[in-house]
Amino acid sequence: MIEALPLQVEPSALTDAISNVWVLTVTFLIFFMHAGFAMLEAGQVRAKNVANQLTKNLLTWSVGVTVFFVIGAGISGLIGGDPYTDAFPFLDEEYIGWLYGAVFAMTAATIVSGAVAGRAKLRAYVTYTFLLAAVIYPVVTGITWVGEYIAVGDAVFHDFAGGMIVHGLGGIAGLTAAYILGPRMDRFGEDGSPNVIPGHSMTFAVLGTLMLAFGWYGFNVGTAAVFAEAGPNGDLLAFNGAVLSRVAMGTTIAMAAGAMGAGLVAWLKTDKVDTLYVANGLLAGLVGITAIPDTTTWWGAFIVGGLAGAQLPIVFGFVENRLKIDDVCAVFPVHGSAGVLGTLAFPFVAVEAWQGGLDLGFVVEGFITQVLGVVIIAAWTILATGVVWGALKAIGQARVTPEHEREGLDLSEHGVETYPEFGDEDPLVADGGVSAVRSRGDSDE
Amino acid sequence: MIEALPLQVEPSALTDAISNVWVLTVTFLIFFMHAGFAMLEAGQVRAKNVANQLTKNLLTWSVGVTVFFVIGAGISGLIGGDPYTDAFPFLDEEYIGWLYGAVFAMTAATIVSGAVAGRAKLRAYVTYTFLLAAVIYPVVTGITWVGEYIAVGDAVFHDFAGGMIVHGLGGIAGLTAAYILGPRMDRFGEDGSPNVIPGHSMTFAVLGTLMLAFGWYGFNVGTAAVFAEAGPNGDLLAFNGAVLSRVAMGTTIAMAAGAMGAGLVAWLKTDKVDTLYVANGLLAGLVGITAIPDTTTWWGAFIVGGLAGAQLPIVFGFVENRLKIDDVCAVFPVHGSAGVLGTLAFPFVAVEAWQGGLDLGFVVEGFITQVLGVVIIAAWTILATGVVWGALKAIGQARVTPEHEREGLDLSEHGVETYPEFGDEDPLVADGGVSAVRSRGDSDE
Amino acid sequence: MIEALPLQVEPSALTDAISNVWVLTVTFLIFFMHAGFAMLEAGQVRAKNVANQLTKNLLTWSVGVTVFFVIGAGISGLIGGDPYTDAFPFLDEEYIGWLYGAVFAMTAATIVSGAVAGRAKLRAYVTYTFLLAAVIYPVVTGITWVGEYIAVGDAVFHDFAGGMIVHGLGGIAGLTAAYILGPRMDRFGEDGSPNVIPGHSMTFAVLGTLMLAFGWYGFNVGTAAVFAEAGPNGDLLAFNGAVLSRVAMGTTIAMAAGAMGAGLVAWLKTDKVDTLYVANGLLAGLVGITAIPDTTTWWGAFIVGGLAGAQLPIVFGFVENRLKIDDVCAVFPVHGSAGVLGTLAFPFVAVEAWQGGLDLGFVVEGFITQVLGVVIIAAWTILATGVVWGALKAIGQARVTPEHEREGLDLSEHGVETYPEFGDEDPLVADGGVSAVRSRGDSDE
Repeated sequence: MIEALPLQVEPSALTDAISNVWVLTVTFLIFFMHAGFAMLEAGQVRAKNVANQLTKNLLTWSVGVTVFFVIGAGISGLIGGDPYTDAFPFLDEEYIGWLYGAVFAMTAATIVSGAVAGRAKLRAYVTYTFLLAAVIYPVVTGITWVGEYIAVGDAVFHDFAGGMIVHGLGGIAGLTAAYILGPRMDRFGEDGSPNVIPGHSMTFAVLGTLMLAFGWYGFNVGTAAVFAEAGPNGDLLAFNGAVLSRVAMGTTIAMAAGAMGAGLVAWLKTDKVDTLYVANGLLAGLVGITAIPDTTTWWGAFIVGGLAGAQLPIVFGFVENRLKIDDVCAVFPVHGSAGVLGTLAFPFVAVEAWQGGLDLGFVVEGFITQVLGVVIIAAWTILATGVVWGALKAIGQARVTPEHEREGLDLSEHGVETYPEFGDEDPLVADGGVSAVRSRGDSDE
Repeated sequence: MIEALPLQVEPSALTDAISNVWVLTVTFLIFFMHAGFAMLEAGQVRAKNVANQLTKNLLTWSVGVTVFFVIGAGISGLIGGDPYTDAFPFLDEEYIGWLYGAVFAMTAATIVSGAVAGRAKLRAYVTYTFLLAAVIYPVVTGITWVGEYIAVGDAVFHDFAGGMIVHGLGGIAGLTAAYILGPRMDRFGEDGSPNVIPGHSMTFAVLGTLMLAFGWYGFNVGTAAVFAEAGPNGDLLAFNGAVLSRVAMGTTIAMAAGAMGAGLVAWLKTDKVDTLYVANGLLAGLVGITAIPDTTTWWGAFIVGGLAGAQLPIVFGFVENRLKIDDVCAVFPVHGSAGVLGTLAFPFVAVEAWQGGLDLGFVVEGFITQVLGVVIIAAWTILATGVVWGALKAIGQARVTPEHEREGLDLSEHGVETYPEFGDEDPLVADGGVSAVRSRGDSDE
Repeated sequence: MIEALPLQVEPSALTDAISNVWVLTVTFLIFFMHAGFAMLEAGQVRAKNVANQLTKNLLTWSVGVTVFFVIGAGISGLIGGDPYTDAFPFLDEEYIGWLYGAVFAMTAATIVSGAVAGRAKLRAYVTYTFLLAAVIYPVVTGITWVGEYIAVGDAVFHDFAGGMIVHGLGGIAGLTAAYILGPRMDRFGEDGSPNVIPGHSMTFAVLGTLMLAFGWYGFNVGTAAVFAEAGPNGDLLAFNGAVLSRVAMGTTIAMAAGAMGAGLVAWLKTDKVDTLYVANGLLAGLVGITAIPDTTTWWGAFIVGGLAGAQLPIVFGFVENRLKIDDVCAVFPVHGSAGVLGTLAFPFVAVEAWQGGLDLGFVVEGFITQVLGVVIIAAWTILATGVVWGALKAIGQARVTPEHEREGLDLSEHGVETYPEFGDEDPLVADGGVSAVRSRGDSDE
């Protein structure tokens, strides 16, 4: 009988092949989010700082992935309880799994660059990226995904694809770093009133948004395994279709609801549908669902995505008007608060909670665990980020000089002009005024 | 023997896994076409209307996919004869299939935004998108892909990946809406002679073109199933390699021929190789093959793609000079007439028609069915689109005021400037003239 | 027993399905590199030549893939020893394999357009592309991948994914063509000192870089087969995980090291971290590893990638200052010298060379074979490219007139303006000066 087969192949070779082809494909998609972040951030900064933003992005990936190869992945594994021979990729040689982890790590790292745009020193930023990839992020994955140490009763901290672990961390780190650095000059008036400093290209910002959404399908759906254990003894592999299906739906619905939620709130506030709020709202919806798409009902995806979008204009206003923090690319409302919101929403919108009536035990235990996880990750992120940027500030290495900031970081840090044939590279300098800086009151005209 | 296996897995789990991983991957690619459309259209509009175009694109996806989840998919299924428990995705929970359908639906919707650029009211556009996703498109898929109601003798209306159902519908809807809205101011002189209003960035337009071509591989090749039934009783699954292979080839050859065809005709007409015609010709070649790549011979792909490209400058000129319709992004020649052309070409270039000499019966029956399908879809699209935009126009909600149009929709509808540091946002206003508006006669200089 | 199965499927249908889905997916990714090249090159040319660069890119794909379908693939197969029924895709109908080969061929072709930017005639460029796709590239793949004719002892010329065959060929062809064409006007002063003519958009250049890196995962990892033969008689198919894993890691590490290497050397030379060097360094790192990711150790990937990046500013300076060749987009240092470097490094960093101590025989034999391959490919490329461009030059068809060059190729060759609403299309003309042309000495300010 066996000789009748044209070739032989073990079932495990087939399932390994399918699973790894899937993981590689989604890893490439998640890598592409890096390009999305580059465009999103470049579009939201001034023309005189674009090359600086792009360079930071390129170095985040280059330095970060190297550090995560040599140090970070190993730290994460060791903290999580792996033997050191498995933890370090160059010892284990299981490089696909490492790369899959690396693209998530680099996402967390790159978020920060959007918050500190326009005034952070390149070497300060690279130093922070080094430490984030080597320690700050690996500690978080070590105690969560690898070690599963945050647990209460039957509930383990649930963060499917990194709504808190990746995006929450990135957004909170960004806010912390932006607070320590202080705002860009002219960002706030002498009376503390905020001035809007618009980014140089809405087109690049929206391009980046849609590239990110594309890659996010890899980020979320790709986190679902192709096969799941089934059979009475878990000895049969079944297609994991229900989870893949739910993640694909939730990711889609939440991003749509996020865009509509942010657009609606912006429209109610200003009578205009602000393009950037719609775009960032779409991303906030994606962040909101990222911790929970494997378990969230379809109506839960609408609610979580919609709230994640709706909170964006409100939280952005709070950060600007109350905290007086200059979070240039709105990374806290997009990644931080939206990530926290979705992570905390887990037990209320989970399929498990609503099977046969509301399971209150599941909800209470789940919520406590989620709060615990959010608090621990946020505290660690604020602490570690505060220490690093605080130390850099103390030694005068955190921020460029006022002359360099006014001239633009492209010239002072990189010796280039991004658009040598276009525009007036710095209207502030040219006009001695604020022609390109609109006060909030004018922004709706 | 069984205990010697490291794991067990049912054959159906393997084929399900492979098929679904494939569908998910191509669904992500098709989603990325949305980003391609955003760039293609943004590049082809004036700088003062870019954010408007981008916002419409973001809302097309967000509003459209929500409506298609709640209403549209169900309508399509019900019309096609599915039980309602299968038709509505939130009842069926087969979300992967729904999302795969949704990315096609959103492609049809987004095409329209390119035709009505620069003067449609945002709320009018969103209203139309709502109705397209809820009813207009679902009716078409219900009577074709789902119900297969259009048939003559042995022939069923053949539209493999939506050359008519998606692109033809979108292109015809765009032309209808643009006709009802009327042209942008200054688009035609007082004597009716057309003025060329060039888009603000050829680079974004070509970027969008190539992003679309990338996603189109998902659109066409991804429509081919990985497995096909084989064996005497259809009880054996075989790899569907011949069809996948032909679709991949036809998509490639037709886009190449489309770019060359359009470039050649433009060159013959003006002695220049117009970049935008080459780019849009590539897309027209893709549209041309989309209904038929599963059956078309390699020489058929050359002919159909080449004709789809060659008709572009001619049909564009006809729409502009004779119909006096301001189809800003040329969506009718790219998606409408090219889609019709390819759909009608089906029986003449199909492998089936030429096996062992020309099968005249196949050709005649096939052609009649294709004409029938094209006429029904076109009539429904014109009717439905005409009613919606006609009603919006009747209540004065279709078009922005002349002041807002002149000022640009970015400021009036969204309160933003796309490029606050560059350029003269509106040379027409600044110069009181037409410096950026070239008359056709000058366009070759 | 068989009736218990819900469906039947042959093992070969499963492995064929998995392998082909993988090949199609990576083929689409490699196609997307075309969009990356378009953006990278567009960003690095003057605003007045952008549409020309984009058109060349569109025609490279359209003309090239057609020629490769009708002629090139067949030539490659015939030279390599295939029967003609297998060599020509329209006879064999194995279109997936053909398309997979075609996207590599088009990569080689498109590299050249970056070197000859700003002064080559469109018809000259298209003629060269035709010949490259029909003969120049197919000869190289025929004697290497297909025929495996370059061999010494046990060693066969090793070029896994085209580090030399695709990128080395493209880079050397570009340098040759740029030499024959001569530099753009104003590129060198009367005393031969170089002037920097900056590209018009760093943002598009970096976008292109990251799009290329995304597609490169397909280029390299996709070259690894999903299954490998195993078992005592090679009659068992096993998952080819070790190779896929190593390629994914090497590609990642080398690009990171390339970006850091180029950034470091630029920083040492000028005290600034030049954005474009970092971006092109990332690409040089990718080129460096492309011949060898299947065999290279993790430390080898660091070394090869780092050296490929570090040589970039040095070789670019050599080409500019010594050779006085105007290689506009630095295609020789990025694709040419980096490709040669990685190809020659093969035996020194291969896993095989270091298993149980250094295997000197492997290294010596391997190095001689690699040198032989590099010399043969380089000689053929220089010869063929030199003959074609030399002939075009001899009949006065290689280069546009000085008037057209000054006016910009967009107007003279395509009749379009890329950015009709922005900027001063040619500061050289407007100012009668060199405001946008910086001399090297000023470039760090």
